[in-house]
Amino acid sequence: MGRLRKAFNHLTPPQVLAVGFIWAIICGTILLLLPFAATEPVSFIDALFTATSATTVTGLVVLDTGSDFTVFGQTVIMILIKLGGLGLMTFAILIVLALGKKIGLKERMLVQESFNQPTMGGMVRLVKMLLVFAFSMELIATVFLALRWVPEYGWSFGLFTSLFHAISAFNNAGFSLWSDSLSGYVGDPAVNLIITILFITGGIGFTVVYDSIRTKNFRQLSLHSKIMITGTLIVNVAAMFIIFILEYGNPETLGGFLWYEKILASYFQAVTPRTAGFNTIDIGSMESSTITFMLLLMFIGAGSASTGSGIKLTTFLVIVLAVTAYLRGKKEPVIFERTIQDHIVVRALAIVVVSLSAVLVSIFILSLTEDAPYILVVFEAFSAFGTVGLSMGLTHELSGIGKQVIIVLMIIGRLGPVTLAFALAKSKSSNVRYPKGDIFTG
Amino acid sequence: MGRLRKAFNHLTPPQVLAVGFIWAIICGTILLLLPFAATEPVSFIDALFTATSATTVTGLVVLDTGSDFTVFGQTVIMILIKLGGLGLMTFAILIVLALGKKIGLKERMLVQESFNQPTMGGMVRLVKMLLVFAFSMELIATVFLALRWVPEYGWSFGLFTSLFHAISAFNNAGFSLWSDSLSGYVGDPAVNLIITILFITGGIGFTVVYDSIRTKNFRQLSLHSKIMITGTLIVNVAAMFIIFILEYGNPETLGGFLWYEKILASYFQAVTPRTAGFNTIDIGSMESSTITFMLLLMFIGAGSASTGSGIKLTTFLVIVLAVTAYLRGKKEPVIFERTIQDHIVVRALAIVVVSLSAVLVSIFILSLTEDAPYILVVFEAFSAFGTVGLSMGLTHELSGIGKQVIIVLMIIGRLGPVTLAFALAKSKSSNVRYPKGDIFTG
Ligand SMILES: [K+]
Ligand SMILES: [K+]
Repeated sequence: MGRLRKAFNHLTPPQVLAVGFIWAIICGTILLLLPFAATEPVSFIDALFTATSATTVTGLVVLDTGSDFTVFGQTVIMILIKLGGLGLMTFAILIVLALGKKIGLKERMLVQESFNQPTMGGMVRLVKMLLVFAFSMELIATVFLALRWVPEYGWSFGLFTSLFHAISAFNNAGFSLWSDSLSGYVGDPAVNLIITILFITGGIGFTVVYDSIRTKNFRQLSLHSKIMITGTLIVNVAAMFIIFILEYGNPETLGGFLWYEKILASYFQAVTPRTAGFNTIDIGSMESSTITFMLLLMFIGAGSASTGSGIKLTTFLVIVLAVTAYLRGKKEPVIFERTIQDHIVVRALAIVVVSLSAVLVSIFILSLTEDAPYILVVFEAFSAFGTVGLSMGLTHELSGIGKQVIIVLMIIGRLGPVTLAFALAKSKSSNVRYPKGDIFTG
Repeated sequence: MGRLRKAFNHLTPPQVLAVGFIWAIICGTILLLLPFAATEPVSFIDALFTATSATTVTGLVVLDTGSDFTVFGQTVIMILIKLGGLGLMTFAILIVLALGKKIGLKERMLVQESFNQPTMGGMVRLVKMLLVFAFSMELIATVFLALRWVPEYGWSFGLFTSLFHAISAFNNAGFSLWSDSLSGYVGDPAVNLIITILFITGGIGFTVVYDSIRTKNFRQLSLHSKIMITGTLIVNVAAMFIIFILEYGNPETLGGFLWYEKILASYFQAVTPRTAGFNTIDIGSMESSTITFMLLLMFIGAGSASTGSGIKLTTFLVIVLAVTAYLRGKKEPVIFERTIQDHIVVRALAIVVVSLSAVLVSIFILSLTEDAPYILVVFEAFSAFGTVGLSMGLTHELSGIGKQVIIVLMIIGRLGPVTLAFALAKSKSSNVRYPKGDIFTG
């Protein structure tokens, strides 16, 4: 035990995070293999897939959560979601704490500006506040959902399904007890509103929520919060319009709906690809143009230190700003009267390149192992990497190797970008300095 | 006339290049619409498509070059290829000349290192050498191909087809007089060797060729030449092995071939996606894993100041080196004992982002307008952007809007990266300096 603790102390924080995730997945797999966890015997790979999907808050399913698992199995899934979602958010704050101790004054200022938090003691308080905030959101949402679902399903299932969907939504997990996700409530304003508020709040990042509660005035928000709030608003509204127009005439999606159902469904499908993963219309029936657009949304993902994944909205915006500034001949990108430094641009570049490589390699392997249309394979890979959980229907038909690829990709997608971002916050300098060389590009 | 020249003098060099290309395309379209250019009347959009494909040295065809056009029409296509290929290479050198006059000592040193050329007078000599080099390569290749094809087809067609394929290959155009490209010569070592030497030499960039001829020792080559030669070798050999393994058992491609035909065909299909565009096996029958790999090769493309397009091998390597250096905690990427400066990394980033955006938007529009499997649409867009010219079969079935999208994409693909690279070589500094801001990414 002493040796174990000693080994543990030698791990870097990202390694601690990875070990924690692997342990949760292993425990979850064992619990889901118990005879009373499922209605019929579950294979090892399917239990592992389900545990990974829950812990990484993805929501891709090879089994039907509502009918193939018992209430015990569903509870295990719910707890894994809670651990996975909260675990990463807490980690993000703890790592900031660790950074604050080791790094120089400049980085310490960054940490303090982001959290508007001048002392270390305040940081610990911040983690406590995160826990309280998460539980409160889930509790209040459960009550509101129960008002809708207890009358429909009775106390027992009505309460359980409300709690399950509240936790699944706040943690951007996308798991549902219904096999068609929330398609049964496509025109229900209450369910649409509660679920989307949960996953948007969970996905924007706790630092932004904390900053917003603390500050009354938009101008006083940290740069990070300003970008996240403005960016989320713009991307979501634009996505809603685009999906509304593209799917308007599609008889298998919006075509047959009433006007307000069309608007509600467009809104829901616009906000869900940024890693929430619930759906109210059939993804497999959407136009391939909409699917192409959703690939981009899934890759972008949510906010830093959130329950969502993807490369993160800020990473995407940093790239866009840097390229725009460069094309316009500006020396440095500027946003909200602040310049973005080179090392942030290079970090964003690293995250995008590593992420795209992971997705590309996965598509390559899946196109070898799966006998399915290319668009299904591409969509599945982007969905797994972004821990989105939407599927055009491939998940249920995955081969054994295909399941393994998706399992690895979900873990990379959940831990990769955040690990990269924080592990690389401090970079060593090379001892050998070479003269500068020039290369033509383009 | 005086006013026209005055207006012309006000254009920036990239604008001159764009105007030149548009003029060549318009003249080509008119010539191809002449009644004696085609065996049957050609529609305006098809003539425009063919002229654009030839001038941008792409090789995507909506009509069959060998049977739908007369020798006059085929000659027009050949001249457009020659103008388009040589035009861009000359431009690349002229723009370097222009840069040399305007820019500071540092950039002048870069120009001189790259060309190993100490004086401006030497630059003009360089352009002359390029013209002589291109004509010599094409002439010698025509003679060698004629040795193979005159005995088979007689003097008239034998000589013409040799000249046509020599020009098409050296300029990485991918146009062929046979509807199945070079599939009839899949096992012919002479044809395989001559054609690939032509397009690899044309695609590596004239500065590299010049540097190699001038310098006896690899160590004395410029950094750019070292990277291009090593990179081309590694990528081509790796691609050959990968395609050999992936397609080995595919009965519709390598499956039925003899062992040496398998190797020859793997080699040919490995080197052709880097914008040459000829093929000796049916692209539409290849495995979707091979297609995924080829998408990457097509996007990477050829070398700077070459007859090929794509983001360029150096752009790709700069991104890979920058990310690798960053992941390993190094301050700056190093290659061949030279560091790569930040502004080169940002320029490469800009080229990749703009290019990927152009391809993504095109896939989006094509998926709206074309009724075809997704993989065909994705492949067609990457092929058009990289001015590669390989197709899984969509080109012939393109809708009117689809043809327009591909026309625009071919022009962007041919002019975009090179224009970006040179136009952005000098960047203005912003007058307003803001304090530095920090953002979490990932
Ligand atoms: K999810
Ligand atoms: K080509």
